[in-house]
Amino acid sequence: MGKIRLGILGGGEESLIGILHRVASSMFDKYELVGGVFDPEHQKSLNFAKKLQLNPNRVYKDLDDFVQKEGQLPESERIQVVSVLTPNFLHFPMAKQLLENGYNVICEKPLTTTYEEAKILKQTQEKANAIFAVTYTYTGYPMVRQMKSMIKNGEIGKIQKVDVQYYQGWINPLIHDKEKRAATWRLDPEKSGISCCIGDIGTHAFNMAEYVTGLEIHEILADLNYLYEDNPMDIDGTVLLRFSEKIKGVLRASQIATGEENNFTVKVYGDKGGLKWEQENPNYLYLLKEDKPLQVLKPGHVYNSDFSLEGTKLPPGHPEGIFDSMGNIYLGIANAINKETKFEGAYPLLNDGLRGMNFIEKTVASHKKGNVWVKMKD
Amino acid sequence: MGKIRLGILGGGEESLIGILHRVASSMFDKYELVGGVFDPEHQKSLNFAKKLQLNPNRVYKDLDDFVQKEGQLPESERIQVVSVLTPNFLHFPMAKQLLENGYNVICEKPLTTTYEEAKILKQTQEKANAIFAVTYTYTGYPMVRQMKSMIKNGEIGKIQKVDVQYYQGWINPLIHDKEKRAATWRLDPEKSGISCCIGDIGTHAFNMAEYVTGLEIHEILADLNYLYEDNPMDIDGTVLLRFSEKIKGVLRASQIATGEENNFTVKVYGDKGGLKWEQENPNYLYLLKEDKPLQVLKPGHVYNSDFSLEGTKLPPGHPEGIFDSMGNIYLGIANAINKETKFEGAYPLLNDGLRGMNFIEKTVASHKKGNVWVKMKD
Amino acid sequence: MGKIRLGILGGGEESLIGILHRVASSMFDKYELVGGVFDPEHQKSLNFAKKLQLNPNRVYKDLDDFVQKEGQLPESERIQVVSVLTPNFLHFPMAKQLLENGYNVICEKPLTTTYEEAKILKQTQEKANAIFAVTYTYTGYPMVRQMKSMIKNGEIGKIQKVDVQYYQGWINPLIHDKEKRAATWRLDPEKSGISCCIGDIGTHAFNMAEYVTGLEIHEILADLNYLYEDNPMDIDGTVLLRFSEKIKGVLRASQIATGEENNFTVKVYGDKGGLKWEQENPNYLYLLKEDKPLQVLKPGHVYNSDFSLEGTKLPPGHPEGIFDSMGNIYLGIANAINKETKFEGAYPLLNDGLRGMNFIEKTVASHKKGNVWVKMKD
Amino acid sequence: MGKIRLGILGGGEESLIGILHRVASSMFDKYELVGGVFDPEHQKSLNFAKKLQLNPNRVYKDLDDFVQKEGQLPESERIQVVSVLTPNFLHFPMAKQLLENGYNVICEKPLTTTYEEAKILKQTQEKANAIFAVTYTYTGYPMVRQMKSMIKNGEIGKIQKVDVQYYQGWINPLIHDKEKRAATWRLDPEKSGISCCIGDIGTHAFNMAEYVTGLEIHEILADLNYLYEDNPMDIDGTVLLRFSEKIKGVLRASQIATGEENNFTVKVYGDKGGLKWEQENPNYLYLLKEDKPLQVLKPGHVYNSDFSLEGTKLPPGHPEGIFDSMGNIYLGIANAINKETKFEGAYPLLNDGLRGMNFIEKTVASHKKGNVWVKMKD
Repeated sequence: MGKIRLGILGGGEESLIGILHRVASSMFDKYELVGGVFDPEHQKSLNFAKKLQLNPNRVYKDLDDFVQKEGQLPESERIQVVSVLTPNFLHFPMAKQLLENGYNVICEKPLTTTYEEAKILKQTQEKANAIFAVTYTYTGYPMVRQMKSMIKNGEIGKIQKVDVQYYQGWINPLIHDKEKRAATWRLDPEKSGISCCIGDIGTHAFNMAEYVTGLEIHEILADLNYLYEDNPMDIDGTVLLRFSEKIKGVLRASQIATGEENNFTVKVYGDKGGLKWEQENPNYLYLLKEDKPLQVLKPGHVYNSDFSLEGTKLPPGHPEGIFDSMGNIYLGIANAINKETKFEGAYPLLNDGLRGMNFIEKTVASHKKGNVWVKMKD
Repeated sequence: MGKIRLGILGGGEESLIGILHRVASSMFDKYELVGGVFDPEHQKSLNFAKKLQLNPNRVYKDLDDFVQKEGQLPESERIQVVSVLTPNFLHFPMAKQLLENGYNVICEKPLTTTYEEAKILKQTQEKANAIFAVTYTYTGYPMVRQMKSMIKNGEIGKIQKVDVQYYQGWINPLIHDKEKRAATWRLDPEKSGISCCIGDIGTHAFNMAEYVTGLEIHEILADLNYLYEDNPMDIDGTVLLRFSEKIKGVLRASQIATGEENNFTVKVYGDKGGLKWEQENPNYLYLLKEDKPLQVLKPGHVYNSDFSLEGTKLPPGHPEGIFDSMGNIYLGIANAINKETKFEGAYPLLNDGLRGMNFIEKTVASHKKGNVWVKMKD
Repeated sequence: MGKIRLGILGGGEESLIGILHRVASSMFDKYELVGGVFDPEHQKSLNFAKKLQLNPNRVYKDLDDFVQKEGQLPESERIQVVSVLTPNFLHFPMAKQLLENGYNVICEKPLTTTYEEAKILKQTQEKANAIFAVTYTYTGYPMVRQMKSMIKNGEIGKIQKVDVQYYQGWINPLIHDKEKRAATWRLDPEKSGISCCIGDIGTHAFNMAEYVTGLEIHEILADLNYLYEDNPMDIDGTVLLRFSEKIKGVLRASQIATGEENNFTVKVYGDKGGLKWEQENPNYLYLLKEDKPLQVLKPGHVYNSDFSLEGTKLPPGHPEGIFDSMGNIYLGIANAINKETKFEGAYPLLNDGLRGMNFIEKTVASHKKGNVWVKMKD
Repeated sequence: MGKIRLGILGGGEESLIGILHRVASSMFDKYELVGGVFDPEHQKSLNFAKKLQLNPNRVYKDLDDFVQKEGQLPESERIQVVSVLTPNFLHFPMAKQLLENGYNVICEKPLTTTYEEAKILKQTQEKANAIFAVTYTYTGYPMVRQMKSMIKNGEIGKIQKVDVQYYQGWINPLIHDKEKRAATWRLDPEKSGISCCIGDIGTHAFNMAEYVTGLEIHEILADLNYLYEDNPMDIDGTVLLRFSEKIKGVLRASQIATGEENNFTVKVYGDKGGLKWEQENPNYLYLLKEDKPLQVLKPGHVYNSDFSLEGTKLPPGHPEGIFDSMGNIYLGIANAINKETKFEGAYPLLNDGLRGMNFIEKTVASHKKGNVWVKMKD
């Protein structure tokens, strides 16, 4: 089977996320980067493509140009899947146009800027019958997958408590100065949608809670923090969670936890044990059992599930990181495109992105109504 | 100056907590254990006293006997302070009687079984003008004291986020079996008051949040978990906190976090840095600053505050533990009795116990009213 | 059974080690501190005894005075065991005199200043048939005891590699300045014997290697470091070890590992698994097995040996420390005196101290001869 | 500047190391994989190339074929650098032939099977004036580079102690069974040279000790372990080190440290501080200073050196791993080929591989002569 022809929108010279997607796509020899629109300025786009030694004919002025010209190519040459790495507000129109023109889509998170858009996208995808992935990067870590497998297999029994945390500190140096915060696009609702902290990182935590447990969150109660009255965007918040079957949980997110880098943790406790994972030390999974020694599981060992093992390229003791995690997601997408999907959860679905958008809106609603319970269901 | 004459109520042969208080009282050569009532059965009390080589004349049948006979001794021989280690419901009447008869009191937590009792006790103490300590043991750790000192000195600037967690798993093996939970006194409101999880460990977390920050919590919103409809006692809960000056926080407590032992953590983030501490590794204090290496402070070093250093008996690298923490609290009480108090916060006050009782009642009220905000102020 | 009457030599007002022994002796209500010689200046000794509320009649001018006057007391009142906490060079004459006069002895390490003295002491003890403990404090930690139990029970199979490390940094600020190092008694052979680093901490590592494995070291090859030619005392060294049955090991000790506090670690690998322990985090024992999750054992759990469990006073999650470790050793000694010994290894024996002295001399000999193999056997 | 044309020898379908080199080479868009000899069976080689979508014309039967046909291509198309990933005994002849035909070489370690070969290779390279890298992968980690930078800048002052450890357990399940060990190529001197443990992992530790300190090791004394008399290959060993200026160190390596995965650690202590790093948690660098809090440095922060920062692709808190480490080495090689080298130590040199071969032979010699000092200098 040949490599999958990959296009990219965005992710040019100065993009941080571009390198993550390019390296990830190359990890398992499943993709060939063919072309795309790397920058709104065409010349910059061409320059970048040259650096990557791409065929300049496959570098387009904009998405219209892309769609038109690629469409004229024979199917055997045409780009098959497109990664959308543009600013958030462009995710929706671009993904929609791609779906409508027969492309599979890999979309950075957040999926869209509103829940409404996300629902439209869902309908479009269903009509197009295309593969659509939303890159919740952290779900690709082998020990996150192992956690999902173990919970599914009943290792910790019936779940009775879910606790997710996502703490960063990077907004702190910006938030206390009026000018600085005015200059921060993340704090501008025009550019970032209605939420900063919940939108950017709270959704990761929300997705992870559902991903590892296999449960759906049904109802939430949120208390957000804006710190200054003239700041329109939440930068910290706690959300009480109710899953199906009355299971309770709590989600904490912050961008003013000064000094924290990317402290994303997940803890799930069942009636037979507990599991804990931390993003900053992603190669350790902690299994707690009553009156048993604490167990620390690591990637690559035979005791891990096949799903986890698929995501480890070297023997135990050779730490892999976030590029490898994204690489595993790209592998999952490639397998889906090649109709070789082996594992449920091998990549995050459009539905995960949709639920994330719903979560953002319901969270802000709960807070604005005075910290009351709000149902996720429309 | 001679040793302080100490009496004990409870804490006999089978008591776990008795050894903690006895060892703690002996640590700095400040106390002499003289007598008390170690067991409701007088003979058992005498046997235990014999083992401790105490004078049997100072072992009393009950508190009435204690008060009467000690009262007949000259002041220079009379017991000066009494540790109340009896079951929770006896704390209030015993502490009250002791105060009314001129004794200083060291009381295990919870202070009483109701907020009302606690308020009465407060009045009684004010009238008696006695020293009264409530043994929130964890506040005696050197690195907790260092955390308090650093926050007070502005090391992390203005506080903007407080996060406390107290997770245990020990109720899990009891809660899923109707008979077992009926046989657990902690789950019996008659014996334990209106709350299990919040009452037993949530109060520790509440106290710690106020202790290290020097702030008061003004308002709370609680979501408790009972797991079974016929279980009358909370065994898990999350409480949203509002401190003075609109500072927000969150408190999480659980006794069904299966496999957790005594996972009590405190995180405080200010606009200049963050501080984190974990009870299970009590000799490490983590200081986070933007764009600076993470710093790990340890006991006994010259960079610590005098208050912290008072609580370390050996040079750095010689780990001390929970007995030493309680020893530091006993030292603080001894200094208070000897009118030699050097540090604010050297031992937890009756007011801390009072606020704890208030917290329990307001938390349950918030939950029962449907997870609404409740003010701490009466 | 009454409490054991304890005497102390040394350990007065300014002693760091005095408080460790006093608190340790009080932990299990097994000892009553009766008297001794706390300071060479009698008045200071009396003042200190007053603070401890001891009977001044049991405070003696010197050891001759102690032996003479205690000897006149009826046996039921006489001190039964004496802790020798005086400067190193006094350990030998004092311990000898105590043995010759019928006392059990608890001696701080190093046992003596020469191997020759240690051998004489051994003969004296055998004649006296007395209990004699050498306080290698670290062997009292519950997880060290658990490690010993597990190795004994074959948990890691046949041992094939032993690795002990004891790194400190405190000599670094003294060693580079000629005046400072001249003023440091540890660096004066007159006061400290022929070795500094190996004598002070290398012996701990040596003892621990034999203690947990139950093996004897037969042969050594040492490379010591003196850093300056005019410095007569080693401050760092590596020792290759050969145990019985050709098992190999390595011991590393340093007092110039700048910034290290008391970083004492033990690793033992057998053909069925490995065990690791670190003094600065003494409540964790790591069990490694091929293709199994790492296991972390903690004190107080039912999966621990009875020997380990005897040394834990509170439930899991309540960290105990070095005072508790020494307390366990005092408990072992009390049980021996009361002829109630339950566990092999409950306290370190004179023979451990003797082997330690032998190790020091053989290590220095190996180094001085040009880093050659030297047999431990005389 | 166009991409560098890369060839690969070995690293085919079943190779573990192939994926590491391919992903690493793709990380910074500096290389284009053009062709090579992926497998001794030509058809397998072609199949693998097809999977990678390489031009089959650039897939050669063997190295002779490679050299001949590539040589006929114009220089602007010809492969510029070749990664040698074949079995150890082929490194020497292949690298030599490549050098003699004008190619730059990236060679897996060990460089050769004998020190003699390595010296010949050195001469060949000098004549060819080619870039030659030996992939000591671990030197590419950002925090290893930061350690090197800090030591160079005097952060820990004059070095006085070096301690390196490389512990694995994977030989344990093979060594105790005569048949299994006969079937292990690592234990066959014909295939692996004269040493197993020192050759495979001891050399990594040796290289790291020299790399981070910038010092040369002058003299060694080794004690190796073979465990069974009929086993010709060391599987464990301790080596005493003497660097220039009488600085002492110790290197420990083991493949029978049962349960260890890839536990490679480096500690360097100077008169102003200490630095510690562990391969299994590669994103933490520990800085120890007297009477200062322990500092933990992490990648991507402004406080790191430019050299370290070049090796981090994402902001702090996004853990990178061993693929990224190798990617940094490939970046260093690319910069050298492009004559844009910015940092000393950006990739390991042939001289590092040469010194490694020397170390292996001198270590075995020291052991065989009875654990005596052997000079590294010929």
